[in-house]
Amino acid sequence: MPDSKQYYIGIDVGGTSVKEGLFDEDGNLLGKVSVPTPSLAEEAGYAAVVSGIEELMGSVQQPILFVRGIGLALPCPVPASGNITLAANIKINAPELKEALESRCPHADVRYVNDANAAAMGELWRGSAKGHRSMVMVTIGTGLGGGVVVNGDVIDGAFGAGGEIGHMCVNPDETRVCGCGNKGCLEQYASATGVVSNYLHECEVRGVDPIELSGTSDSRAVFQACREGDEVAWAAVETMTDYLARGLQIISAVVDPEVYVLGGGASASADVYLDKLREKYAACALSVSAKTPIEVAELGNDAGIIGAAYVALRAAACEV
Amino acid sequence: MPDSKQYYIGIDVGGTSVKEGLFDEDGNLLGKVSVPTPSLAEEAGYAAVVSGIEELMGSVQQPILFVRGIGLALPCPVPASGNITLAANIKINAPELKEALESRCPHADVRYVNDANAAAMGELWRGSAKGHRSMVMVTIGTGLGGGVVVNGDVIDGAFGAGGEIGHMCVNPDETRVCGCGNKGCLEQYASATGVVSNYLHECEVRGVDPIELSGTSDSRAVFQACREGDEVAWAAVETMTDYLARGLQIISAVVDPEVYVLGGGASASADVYLDKLREKYAACALSVSAKTPIEVAELGNDAGIIGAAYVALRAAACEV
Repeated sequence: MPDSKQYYIGIDVGGTSVKEGLFDEDGNLLGKVSVPTPSLAEEAGYAAVVSGIEELMGSVQQPILFVRGIGLALPCPVPASGNITLAANIKINAPELKEALESRCPHADVRYVNDANAAAMGELWRGSAKGHRSMVMVTIGTGLGGGVVVNGDVIDGAFGAGGEIGHMCVNPDETRVCGCGNKGCLEQYASATGVVSNYLHECEVRGVDPIELSGTSDSRAVFQACREGDEVAWAAVETMTDYLARGLQIISAVVDPEVYVLGGGASASADVYLDKLREKYAACALSVSAKTPIEVAELGNDAGIIGAAYVALRAAACEV
Repeated sequence: MPDSKQYYIGIDVGGTSVKEGLFDEDGNLLGKVSVPTPSLAEEAGYAAVVSGIEELMGSVQQPILFVRGIGLALPCPVPASGNITLAANIKINAPELKEALESRCPHADVRYVNDANAAAMGELWRGSAKGHRSMVMVTIGTGLGGGVVVNGDVIDGAFGAGGEIGHMCVNPDETRVCGCGNKGCLEQYASATGVVSNYLHECEVRGVDPIELSGTSDSRAVFQACREGDEVAWAAVETMTDYLARGLQIISAVVDPEVYVLGGGASASADVYLDKLREKYAACALSVSAKTPIEVAELGNDAGIIGAAYVALRAAACEV
C-alpha cells in the first residue's frame, strides 16, 4: 500500500496505566488514550489495548489497516533478540500481546522496546535531543533509568541491559543493598529515592530531625528544602550530583554521546541541581568530552509513547 | 566500476611503525608491509605511506584504481565528525595524509578510525568476536584501551572518546594522577603499567623487595611470578581483576555487549587472570548480563589493519 497513509502507534505499558498514542509518519501526535493497566496475560487485557487502537484510528476516521507499526514500551529488559524473559513489576505475556496486536493490525510490525529506552527515543525524535545522532537519557524517578542512543538507534543490549545506568556500580564500599541485589549502584544515590536516602543519612550523621516527607522517594520535599536554604538538604544534593557526575563521566568514556538529557519526575527540580551537576561533570570528564551539554527533557509523560512510535517507524523505514 | 575487483587497505599508524594490509572484499589478507613511522605532517611521510599501497597492489598485479576503500587507524581520538584535533604521541596532519591517499587512490574512500576501535572491528570481522553484532574489546597494553561495537559499528563517540574505557573513573579516592590528568582511572589498575604499579604498591605495603622488572609496564614478569606462586604478585593481580571486573560490570549496564574480548600485550598472560576475572564479573554483574562471555583476542598485531580495512569496507558497502 505505498500510496495509502501510514500511521504508527506508541504504547507505553506502565504499572498503573497503559498509554497509547497515534502518530502520522511525520511524528505528529494525532491523539492519545489511557487505560488502567489490565492483566496483560489474558484475552481481556489484550482486548483492552487493542480497543485503544480502534478508538484512536476511529478518531481520525481511518481504517485500522493503515497502522503500519506499533511500538510497545515495556517496563522490563528487552534484549536485542526480542525474547523477553523477565517482567519486573507487572503481569505480562509479551508474545501473546504482540500476537493479539498483529492479528487486529495485519499491516503493522510490532516492536518491543524497554520503557526508559523508549523515552530516550522520544526525546531524540521530538524533544530535547532533537537533531542529534547520539544521546544518553537519564530518567530520575523512583529508580534511575536510562537510554543510550548511538547512530540514531537505542541500544537494547544483548541481554536487555542496555541503558541500565542506574545499576552501574559507583561505590564498591557500599554496605546497603540495591533493589537489584548489588551494592553501590548509581540509583542508590541519584534517584529520587536516593536523594531522600542521602538526606536521611545526613540527618542521622548530624543528629537533626528530618523535614516531613510524604514517602521514601519524596525528593521534591528535599529539593524544596534546598531552595529554602536547608544545609542538610544541600548536602544530600551534593552527594547526588557527585555520583551522577561520576556516572556521566563513565558513560562518556564508553559511548561519548553528543548530549545528556535528564528526565523523570525529579527533572522538574533540575533548577536546584543542574548547574552543580554540569560543573562537576565538566571537572571530572575526559578533556575531549568535558563540554557535553546536559539538558532537561521536554516531553514529560508523553516521551514513552512518542519514542515507542518512533522505534516502530524506524523499523518500518528500514524494511522498505 | 561495478564489475572490477575491489580491494581495501587497512593502515595502522603506531608510534614506531606504520603497518599496511591489503584485503579483498571477503576479508582475505593478501599481503602486508610495515615501515618505520615517518613524520606524517610532510610530503615525504605521506609518500612513504602511499608507496606501501603501491607495493601491495603491485604484489597482486592489480591497478591502484581498484582500491575502493582505505581505513586509517590513528592513535588519537577520532570524533564521529572525522575532525581530528588532538594527536597524542605522534606528529600527524590527518587531513593532508587523507588528501595524499585520495589523490593517489581516486576511487577509494578514506575513513579515519581510532586504533583501539580498529582492533575491535578486526576481532569482530575475523577474530574472537566473529559472528557477533555487538562486543567490547579491552586492550590491555601499556595503557588500557577499548572499542565498543554495537549493531556491527564501532562507536567513535561524538568527541572521539567512544571506547576510552581505560579512563572510566573507578576509584574516586585515588590520589595518584593518571596520564589523562584525572585520578582513579581503570587504566591505573588494570593496564600492564597498572599491574606493575599494583605490584610495587603491594611490595611497599608488605615491606618486601620486588622481583626484577624490565620497566614500568613489565606485567609479564609479575604474571610469571604468579605462575611461580608469588603471593605478592597474586595480590597485584587481585587488584587488577577487582577493578577490571567492576569496569566490565559498568560497561554491561551501559551497552550490554554480546561478548568481551581481551587484547593487547597482557592478554598473552590471560591464563593467569582470566578465570578469576570471569568469576568476579559474574558475581557483580546485573543478573541478565552475568553470563556475558569474556574471551581472548585472536588476531594479535594484525587486528588494527584488519579492522581498519573492515571500517573502509563497511563504509563503501553503505554507500552502494
